[in-house]
Amino acid sequence: MVESECIFCGIIKKRIPSKIIYEDEFSMAFLDIFPISRGHTIIVPKKHYANLEEIPDNELGNLIVVVKKIANILRKKLNFDGYNILQNNFKAAGQDIFHIHFHIIPRTCNDNKFYLQIPKQQASEEELDEILELITN
Amino acid sequence: MVESECIFCGIIKKRIPSKIIYEDEFSMAFLDIFPISRGHTIIVPKKHYANLEEIPDNELGNLIVVVKKIANILRKKLNFDGYNILQNNFKAAGQDIFHIHFHIIPRTCNDNKFYLQIPKQQASEEELDEILELITN
Repeated sequence: MVESECIFCGIIKKRIPSKIIYEDEFSMAFLDIFPISRGHTIIVPKKHYANLEEIPDNELGNLIVVVKKIANILRKKLNFDGYNILQNNFKAAGQDIFHIHFHIIPRTCNDNKFYLQIPKQQASEEELDEILELITN
Repeated sequence: MVESECIFCGIIKKRIPSKIIYEDEFSMAFLDIFPISRGHTIIVPKKHYANLEEIPDNELGNLIVVVKKIANILRKKLNFDGYNILQNNFKAAGQDIFHIHFHIIPRTCNDNKFYLQIPKQQASEEELDEILELITN
């Protein structure tokens, strides 16, 4: 996708209206219009990079510090119990807009918003060793 | 939780065995023994911080760059289609070990591993404005 067709670039350039909660020279935070929970926020770099693999290290480092800062503000103002930071890469992972973004998803106790536990089962030593060998060789 | 009782501190100090795939002076990456998918990896700072709010900005910036690096290695070696970066804060968000950690969750097309879409519904303008006002004032 080219930058001119990107929804988040449109939001950043304010051609598309959004509820902006933070903005600096390099990044922007705005409310997700399809919120998983109250205060669900998206943080983006202003420059267009498709995903985690494209964004330069220094810009990524700056962006995660903005995520931390906004999460702190949200928690103080909205008074929730916890939050997930989620960042999806590629269609298979549920990425729907190909401009790198971090989600801050506020959570309250027993909100049943999403379960990460469901598909987990303990891996065998053999499975883990096979993967370890693939990765480290 | 004090550091001496923390499972991840035990892994970092190699008192608890784990499948370590990467280690440097400040961070470590190891395979999750309850993997959501093949190659599910945990990245931690070696210093003990409970969550995103505790880790200093510069250490957080370095840690996310390690996450990016390990995700690239995993994708090349294990050949999956996408991945989620997930970081949970506080019990309400499903944090189970109170030493900040990032999950890299490899995904393949239609693996049905987890659905973020399920609880979403479009927010009204009024709902978003109410939150915006709370946050920005």
